[in-house]
Amino acid sequence: MSMIDPSILAKLQPIIDSQKFIQHLDVEIDKLVAGECEISIAYAEDWSQQDGCFHGGIIGTLADNAAGLAAATTMKGDANCLTAEYKLNLLAPAKGDKLIARASVIKSGRTLVVAQTDLYSLNGSQERHVATSLVTLIAV
Amino acid sequence: MSMIDPSILAKLQPIIDSQKFIQHLDVEIDKLVAGECEISIAYAEDWSQQDGCFHGGIIGTLADNAAGLAAATTMKGDANCLTAEYKLNLLAPAKGDKLIARASVIKSGRTLVVAQTDLYSLNGSQERHVATSLVTLIAV
Amino acid sequence: MSMIDPSILAKLQPIIDSQKFIQHLDVEIDKLVAGECEISIAYAEDWSQQDGCFHGGIIGTLADNAAGLAAATTMKGDANCLTAEYKLNLLAPAKGDKLIARASVIKSGRTLVVAQTDLYSLNGSQERHVATSLVTLIAV
Amino acid sequence: MSMIDPSILAKLQPIIDSQKFIQHLDVEIDKLVAGECEISIAYAEDWSQQDGCFHGGIIGTLADNAAGLAAATTMKGDANCLTAEYKLNLLAPAKGDKLIARASVIKSGRTLVVAQTDLYSLNGSQERHVATSLVTLIAV
Repeated sequence: MSMIDPSILAKLQPIIDSQKFIQHLDVEIDKLVAGECEISIAYAEDWSQQDGCFHGGIIGTLADNAAGLAAATTMKGDANCLTAEYKLNLLAPAKGDKLIARASVIKSGRTLVVAQTDLYSLNGSQERHVATSLVTLIAV
Repeated sequence: MSMIDPSILAKLQPIIDSQKFIQHLDVEIDKLVAGECEISIAYAEDWSQQDGCFHGGIIGTLADNAAGLAAATTMKGDANCLTAEYKLNLLAPAKGDKLIARASVIKSGRTLVVAQTDLYSLNGSQERHVATSLVTLIAV
Repeated sequence: MSMIDPSILAKLQPIIDSQKFIQHLDVEIDKLVAGECEISIAYAEDWSQQDGCFHGGIIGTLADNAAGLAAATTMKGDANCLTAEYKLNLLAPAKGDKLIARASVIKSGRTLVVAQTDLYSLNGSQERHVATSLVTLIAV
Repeated sequence: MSMIDPSILAKLQPIIDSQKFIQHLDVEIDKLVAGECEISIAYAEDWSQQDGCFHGGIIGTLADNAAGLAAATTMKGDANCLTAEYKLNLLAPAKGDKLIARASVIKSGRTLVVAQTDLYSLNGSQERHVATSLVTLIAV
């Protein structure tokens, strides 16, 4: 089973390409299907805070971005969506080689989309749940 | 009236220096006094989203970081604080030469600190309120 | 200076009258002008939690309701608004004769309205800041 | 499989009994095991808003209370916990005979506990997901 739906990717590619900050962070798209998205970022010292963990700003960025892509998969025609607000709970130090963000759409309304993103650090083969986030997006 | 309290800055300098992601973003500290902090970042294409505005991840990063520094000014001894959670409302497109984050401590308890960060885009001399955030931090 | 704008009150009266839960709590409207609302509730044991303070559910109810009324003052024609989400930080035990909720609209967009509600306990003549809340509403 | 762990219920009974507002609402405990809690409330006009749905204040109250009980099941000795903050997303009109809140602890730290509460309206035998909430609690 492929994790990337090619027609959804084709539709969202222009937005993905124009998100310069996300490109700067070298974020990878690992899954993109209707209502779901998984992205990840490799650890680099540039993305760290004082304890050598991923900085909270990186965690928030991935939480928001994964939710935005998951929400975008549910948009009709050329509608796009923008984040209205999000809330992020940090659960454990995000120490690892990789940070993974998995977003699922909880509700897709005409105007508002609500998605949840769970974030995991990957240390070797060990995943740890490091954050969770609820994101509200608005169709535009 | 100086905007930077030198003894507070001296105390927090080691943490500031070790936040590699914040250094990578070239974030500037414009104000740091008891219970308050203002930081800013200059616009660069690398920090943008699809519409040429500051990316939401940059906005969240500054919201969280300004709150963390404001909270750290209230810590006794060598206590430090970590973000437990935050919520960010995006109010308007963050288009401008600069993004400014102003944080104030609302409540400083023994264990938890709550701060609010308001964010403004600066276009020439015109400020616009682009986001607001409530941040909960825990003393460690 | 009157705290109640009579034309705004007249317009919102049908909604206020049909909010049975708010009537059940005997919530009083103390201020209602463009973009702002203040409401309050008198203490009763029925509204308390285990320490004899106002229950968090009462605090959340007033935070949401005050924000909803403040947002409704900004609606054009017969548009109404519904809460999409809110976040509430509890700052101190809400002990007192009265609980006061003061809401202000931060942003009034075409579709979304964002308001902040601050809550205070009143003990004799002494007010204490017990909670703060950010509320996102959608025009319908 | 019993849904109520008798030793956990016995331990939490004094707190449950002293939550006067929850008793006033006649909230029922349907499940109480380590890390999980389910509570519900029957519809009454007194708990409604303008459209005959459960009022957002009732939804927030149950979200917070279910999370508090789930968190309390993880406390050691006679430690108790208090809500520090919560965020609630309303997903659909809460119309029905009953409102059900299901809370699970996501993270149980030494000081902070994070729980998620999902809320469902029950119409006859049909459940609908009407809200979701992330709650941060502090051990005291």
